[in-house]
Amino acid sequence: MSNEVANLLLPDKPVEECGVFGIYGAGLDVARLTYYGLHALQHRGQESAGIAVADGRQIQLHKGMGLVTEVFTGQQLEQFCGPAAIGHVRYSTTGASQPLNAQPLVFRYAKGMLGLAHNGNITNITELRAQLAATGSVFQSSTDSEVVVNLIARYNANSLEEALMKCMIDVKGAYSLLILTENALYAARDPHGFRPLCLGRLGDAYVVASESCALTTVGAAFLRDIEPGEIIRIDQSGLTVTRGLTAQQPAHCIFEYIYFARPDSTLDGFNVNLVRREMGRQLAREYPVAADIVIAVPDSGTAAARGYAEESGIPFEEGLMKNRYVGRTFIQPTQAMREIGVKLKLNPIREVLQDKRVVMVDDSIVRGTTSQKLVAMLRQAGAREVHLCISSPPVRRSCYYGIDTSDEQELIAAKLPLEEIRRNIDADGLHYLSLEGLLDIFAPRQNHFCTACFNGHYPVEVAKPKESGKYSLE
Amino acid sequence: MSNEVANLLLPDKPVEECGVFGIYGAGLDVARLTYYGLHALQHRGQESAGIAVADGRQIQLHKGMGLVTEVFTGQQLEQFCGPAAIGHVRYSTTGASQPLNAQPLVFRYAKGMLGLAHNGNITNITELRAQLAATGSVFQSSTDSEVVVNLIARYNANSLEEALMKCMIDVKGAYSLLILTENALYAARDPHGFRPLCLGRLGDAYVVASESCALTTVGAAFLRDIEPGEIIRIDQSGLTVTRGLTAQQPAHCIFEYIYFARPDSTLDGFNVNLVRREMGRQLAREYPVAADIVIAVPDSGTAAARGYAEESGIPFEEGLMKNRYVGRTFIQPTQAMREIGVKLKLNPIREVLQDKRVVMVDDSIVRGTTSQKLVAMLRQAGAREVHLCISSPPVRRSCYYGIDTSDEQELIAAKLPLEEIRRNIDADGLHYLSLEGLLDIFAPRQNHFCTACFNGHYPVEVAKPKESGKYSLE
Amino acid sequence: MSNEVANLLLPDKPVEECGVFGIYGAGLDVARLTYYGLHALQHRGQESAGIAVADGRQIQLHKGMGLVTEVFTGQQLEQFCGPAAIGHVRYSTTGASQPLNAQPLVFRYAKGMLGLAHNGNITNITELRAQLAATGSVFQSSTDSEVVVNLIARYNANSLEEALMKCMIDVKGAYSLLILTENALYAARDPHGFRPLCLGRLGDAYVVASESCALTTVGAAFLRDIEPGEIIRIDQSGLTVTRGLTAQQPAHCIFEYIYFARPDSTLDGFNVNLVRREMGRQLAREYPVAADIVIAVPDSGTAAARGYAEESGIPFEEGLMKNRYVGRTFIQPTQAMREIGVKLKLNPIREVLQDKRVVMVDDSIVRGTTSQKLVAMLRQAGAREVHLCISSPPVRRSCYYGIDTSDEQELIAAKLPLEEIRRNIDADGLHYLSLEGLLDIFAPRQNHFCTACFNGHYPVEVAKPKESGKYSLE
Amino acid sequence: MSNEVANLLLPDKPVEECGVFGIYGAGLDVARLTYYGLHALQHRGQESAGIAVADGRQIQLHKGMGLVTEVFTGQQLEQFCGPAAIGHVRYSTTGASQPLNAQPLVFRYAKGMLGLAHNGNITNITELRAQLAATGSVFQSSTDSEVVVNLIARYNANSLEEALMKCMIDVKGAYSLLILTENALYAARDPHGFRPLCLGRLGDAYVVASESCALTTVGAAFLRDIEPGEIIRIDQSGLTVTRGLTAQQPAHCIFEYIYFARPDSTLDGFNVNLVRREMGRQLAREYPVAADIVIAVPDSGTAAARGYAEESGIPFEEGLMKNRYVGRTFIQPTQAMREIGVKLKLNPIREVLQDKRVVMVDDSIVRGTTSQKLVAMLRQAGAREVHLCISSPPVRRSCYYGIDTSDEQELIAAKLPLEEIRRNIDADGLHYLSLEGLLDIFAPRQNHFCTACFNGHYPVEVAKPKESGKYSLE
Repeated sequence: MSNEVANLLLPDKPVEECGVFGIYGAGLDVARLTYYGLHALQHRGQESAGIAVADGRQIQLHKGMGLVTEVFTGQQLEQFCGPAAIGHVRYSTTGASQPLNAQPLVFRYAKGMLGLAHNGNITNITELRAQLAATGSVFQSSTDSEVVVNLIARYNANSLEEALMKCMIDVKGAYSLLILTENALYAARDPHGFRPLCLGRLGDAYVVASESCALTTVGAAFLRDIEPGEIIRIDQSGLTVTRGLTAQQPAHCIFEYIYFARPDSTLDGFNVNLVRREMGRQLAREYPVAADIVIAVPDSGTAAARGYAEESGIPFEEGLMKNRYVGRTFIQPTQAMREIGVKLKLNPIREVLQDKRVVMVDDSIVRGTTSQKLVAMLRQAGAREVHLCISSPPVRRSCYYGIDTSDEQELIAAKLPLEEIRRNIDADGLHYLSLEGLLDIFAPRQNHFCTACFNGHYPVEVAKPKESGKYSLE
Repeated sequence: MSNEVANLLLPDKPVEECGVFGIYGAGLDVARLTYYGLHALQHRGQESAGIAVADGRQIQLHKGMGLVTEVFTGQQLEQFCGPAAIGHVRYSTTGASQPLNAQPLVFRYAKGMLGLAHNGNITNITELRAQLAATGSVFQSSTDSEVVVNLIARYNANSLEEALMKCMIDVKGAYSLLILTENALYAARDPHGFRPLCLGRLGDAYVVASESCALTTVGAAFLRDIEPGEIIRIDQSGLTVTRGLTAQQPAHCIFEYIYFARPDSTLDGFNVNLVRREMGRQLAREYPVAADIVIAVPDSGTAAARGYAEESGIPFEEGLMKNRYVGRTFIQPTQAMREIGVKLKLNPIREVLQDKRVVMVDDSIVRGTTSQKLVAMLRQAGAREVHLCISSPPVRRSCYYGIDTSDEQELIAAKLPLEEIRRNIDADGLHYLSLEGLLDIFAPRQNHFCTACFNGHYPVEVAKPKESGKYSLE
Repeated sequence: MSNEVANLLLPDKPVEECGVFGIYGAGLDVARLTYYGLHALQHRGQESAGIAVADGRQIQLHKGMGLVTEVFTGQQLEQFCGPAAIGHVRYSTTGASQPLNAQPLVFRYAKGMLGLAHNGNITNITELRAQLAATGSVFQSSTDSEVVVNLIARYNANSLEEALMKCMIDVKGAYSLLILTENALYAARDPHGFRPLCLGRLGDAYVVASESCALTTVGAAFLRDIEPGEIIRIDQSGLTVTRGLTAQQPAHCIFEYIYFARPDSTLDGFNVNLVRREMGRQLAREYPVAADIVIAVPDSGTAAARGYAEESGIPFEEGLMKNRYVGRTFIQPTQAMREIGVKLKLNPIREVLQDKRVVMVDDSIVRGTTSQKLVAMLRQAGAREVHLCISSPPVRRSCYYGIDTSDEQELIAAKLPLEEIRRNIDADGLHYLSLEGLLDIFAPRQNHFCTACFNGHYPVEVAKPKESGKYSLE
Repeated sequence: MSNEVANLLLPDKPVEECGVFGIYGAGLDVARLTYYGLHALQHRGQESAGIAVADGRQIQLHKGMGLVTEVFTGQQLEQFCGPAAIGHVRYSTTGASQPLNAQPLVFRYAKGMLGLAHNGNITNITELRAQLAATGSVFQSSTDSEVVVNLIARYNANSLEEALMKCMIDVKGAYSLLILTENALYAARDPHGFRPLCLGRLGDAYVVASESCALTTVGAAFLRDIEPGEIIRIDQSGLTVTRGLTAQQPAHCIFEYIYFARPDSTLDGFNVNLVRREMGRQLAREYPVAADIVIAVPDSGTAAARGYAEESGIPFEEGLMKNRYVGRTFIQPTQAMREIGVKLKLNPIREVLQDKRVVMVDDSIVRGTTSQKLVAMLRQAGAREVHLCISSPPVRRSCYYGIDTSDEQELIAAKLPLEEIRRNIDADGLHYLSLEGLLDIFAPRQNHFCTACFNGHYPVEVAKPKESGKYSLE
């Protein structure tokens, strides 16, 4: 992304780091199905995309920077052959975006070829990398996958399952991992199940994906979620399940439900759209506001806004219009233009807002910059009162399990008390959903989620947060 | 667009042919503002984009195939200078898309330079072109603009206003036209006001645009719609209004409200989003259905679906999820993949649909192919009943005023009676909003709209429909 | 070309404006043959390339900015069909390079379609354009072709031959013109024959091209040159020759032989390579120099340098090495780098030059800037003496017949006497071939050439030089 | 390169695998100088290009597929900073061309960062890679560089010089290697000196490059060749020389002089252009032919052809014209077109060849396919006799030291005796320079060259030729 585009267009949201998709199906066009599967997961990463296909003898790879539709042509997909494929989409920030970090990675090692696609964040990666380097390993990227494959190559294991089991002991943190060999597809999920990973069936073929929406997209039926600590192998003799590690207290990322996942996905038993609707309902119960209309910050706040409207009885309206064509090469307005009020992403609808007391529902606040602009925009469009209702608790801590929240110093809720945030964004009211309220939605599985970004209860130790950051290798 | 993409992804909708934007403002970066304005109008055309800027001595032009963000770089915008600009976006079909037809067009003639950007369709273009050719005119494109500029160059007029007045006498049909000279910006609208065109103010500068959303986007305040038959000139001495022709019975395109225009635009006095909501309400009043949920075909059916839900009291749900990343270079699934149910654009949400009696609201049906697929998709996802409610009357006739509906032979409602359409798309019920119900929304201005596509009442004679078609020159 | 590239890489030479190629051959892949023909003529223009193909009903066109190999893909060539094609390459300078000026141009007029490809310069273009504009013509480009087609459209002619005959009366100056209709290919050459144009045969097909090298490239046999004043029509009934105008005193551009044409071409009876060799011989006879080696400024000076070496008996050596990979997107060195002696295009070979008295042969000097650099480069590489021998007379006047020499003010020989030029470029000797010596090579046809750039004898009046310049329309 | 281009355009020549360039110079724009240096070495590889720059803390890298001018923009060069850089160009064949194999490679290891650029071929690479893999190394590319860096990372060395010394003991074969650390630039050359590598000075800066032409290009003075077995370190304290291994019998690749190197380079004491000229002279002495003219196969046969002409007294003529614009995306003629004689790369000049007895000089024959076409082309253009004189001995064996000759089975001289080759290519005479005659040119250093491709005397053992081939990893 050119520097011209910068901040204004990036939503003030945490960023999901990746999405993965894998399929094993003899006779199917697995490359093209992976292309569609990745396309369904595009919201999880827009920086790079890649597909690796195994044909029994070797692994072919194509990857590049950009959207799935930009990286692949029909001709490229047709050059792939074989029954097994994995694919990966990676997130987009203006930071350390390098072709070298695009996935899958494909390696040769003593026992053949390995392709890897990884979603998550290994918390002891610095330590592992240092140990490997001390005995002669070299690294070309800053990806966790390169460390994983070096570990696998070092184990004196009798099978890849065995190597993965050893790996799961050494590796800490969050990982939903797909591995491709010349003959088989493997999937592994960390013992807490931080990041989602599910299994589907398409005729005789098996499909694994970060989210169920990718299964639906390729016409596969949802079978079940991959369990925390599980290792799955799929090859010509079918599906084999191995327990890699004893599953521990589940710690599914709750932000998947709040913001990341696609509404039509069902993750670890909960449909995202329905959860979001319920968040809005719960928010309305916790914070009833005397208002004329409820509007959403589209698209992420829409489901919760509707829930709020239903519960409160206040009519839901479209008060902000989103431009669907904002692309990655957008030319940013100059400061002078921002001052005259050039609006590129969201337009207020005066006919809806004029003289109204407005409840504006958004899913989360990170730095608070966008909220401030939106409140101002609504007031300019004639809103009499603006009450900002957030369908999640205040984000106060960084994530070390695969999400790129801003630094803790930039999190507005880490720096300011609620009332000052409200004053800062100049809202008439500011309400966050309570953590209890949020978790109640998942009853009786309230304690199956990682809520570290809200309350700092990190399920896996994060020894030296600074050094385990994203750019420690770069 | 590659042929691979073809039909499946193109919505079964009429296609708007163009959007225009113009600005005169000394000291402003008019090229960049036009870029933002065109971006706000991108939904009106994705095939080509262009900007022409006048600096008092000459007119500079840059245009190309693709989205606004694809055609322009920051560097290109910076090379423009001058106080006046016009811009144009053109629609995308797989047909006669040629760089030569991209607009604006810029010409030299006896009195200097002229840039033109045009939205609409001149109904006597074949006749005019033949007359001009008979006396030696030559044409490089099949655009109406090239005919208009030849007419202007032939008149022995004392001013461009005078030439435009003569032109408005000779030219029949629909046009919202922007003209740029070295020193001034002109806007003209046909005497029926078929296509929208509005005027805004940005400090001391004036802005004209196809829709008000483009005004809001650049921070301009809406002043008024350009009246049918009006000619406006903007230059360094300000705004001059000339009546080109006596305004006739207004015949605003009603499909702008049904489908084309952006919801946050207000056209000729009616806010699009509110009108769409009301269409849904009216539909619910005309056709109450015993159902469990109301869903929309996103995004065009959403406002009407919500109106239907409000009026009927049946809950509105998100039953179909749209993939936001479907781009122009998407690789189409093979037939085999379509059979296994690969879904690229819309995904049904089983959790919402299962065992439900569903009202699905869409804005219109053209050929009926998409509707058939959607009904089948809902049934596969568990819907017990599917009632398709359309927030507009049946489209039975072609448009000759700037819209690319399919040929009349392809319009399902021109070929089949209602019950057969219903059977064809396999819905449990099929209901179209009545024309009277639709027009009542605009009371007391029910007769200010062109409804020819519904009832064949063409406000301007269309002598030989076949020959006035889009490709008559090609 | 990006501005970064600029002057340093542009040779200090006049620039040929265009090359044309046409073919009529039923059953042949005329588009692909035109592609190869244009490729053989690529030295005549690198800015844009285009091909138009006629299939009996219409004319298809593809053109773009860049080299032939950059503008066309195999897929595009395959989309063409029909028995007749014309193609065009256009020159590259940093000036008014616009997509609009790329050729062929294709027009609709009263009698159907016309495609045009033009090499030359019409000297009364301003007057013609003004006359046409006065009666209502409009222009989109600054090309001569657009004026020609407007003239044709205005004549009330019974055939295109008749229209071309009228056109040849009205139009003054230099033109080698190809015209394509739906059914036929026409070629016309001005009555002085300024620019080359020849005819070949490929089986039953006919080929016309700016230079014979394009005939050889496509496997066609050379038949003859198109005569000055001739009009040729090729269609399914074969070749028809019409005399458009009485041929006048031939005035073939002598610079084609000095610099522009490819050495393997034979133009109007003289092989370019042999002429160049003879220029060097003649130069050695006129200016014998006491020297150790003869070197060329590659590639344009090579043939003459070898002639000089043969005649003088002084050994020919490769003293300057040319980098074959200098492309159009080359990044220019900074001033600091030029000072440390970064050499991008030509490298001196010290082993050859050290302590030698050197005769360096070049074909011409325009502004003198490159000569100065080359002399300095040779001295730095150890040359004891540098004598610059130019195989053409001093260029003192601008060309108005299709060549882009610099303005007369920039021609060093127009500003300075010989001795001062020598001092300016710091050569030990500077010798130009005499005009008589040059013309003797063509005996007994010494007076068949235009030598206006040397002696100002313009064969066709150039009323107002300033206004007939390249950018008068722009 | 698209498959369309394929064989016809690839010269029937061996292919050099790489070129390297390095510079250490505080205060210089080392990235841009490396760009120019690589550009001067572009003939050594056109597939990919890359530059890595060290700034004292880290190494930045940019590389890509294509020519130097295609891979880099001015903007990219400006983003580099630091005093040290290395660059690499890689050869182009249609085979295993992958972005992963583009160089330089940059690695993290225990002691920091390492960038590598390598020219040559390590003959025991398979064995080394297997040893490393057996103890856990993983590989992403099939480049020798990745093995070298793994070796370096495994040694427990006190300095990089020490590690390189160990490496030179373990690694067999041909290598001219540049290594970049955060603070220093290293160069190493194998003990036989197979591939060239030289050292230059640019003010206070040092430059290393595959050929001296790159030094001249950046304005650097040639200091000396890097000696076989030498390790050189350049950092802020200047130049340090270490002997890595005792130099062994020099075995400089003789094909550099015959074909690969640029004529203006001087390698290991011999200027390429002068050597080539002398080859032609020697050939004329060995094989005097009764002929009318000597012509060259441009450009590689030109110097030898001139030598032949000088020695024989037969006039040198330009009988074949080369099209300078043949690019990498050229669309290949169909078979039908080849049959009608479409000529894309070389055109015969009939005026020169007609009725002549021709000596055609080329530098080498590999598969013989091009020679056959050229002889036929000359005959069609009227040549009475064609004697093909080759300025090198017959190529009969494969190279394992960094050159991509075809497989031995494809080498025409490995399969057929001389007379049959002559008959095969249909020449009236065929003469190869003798090996003794070739080596005499280098007297008294006749035995300083590798001549394995002629006589099979491989200076370094090649245990299992098949497995050490280019694609053993792929």
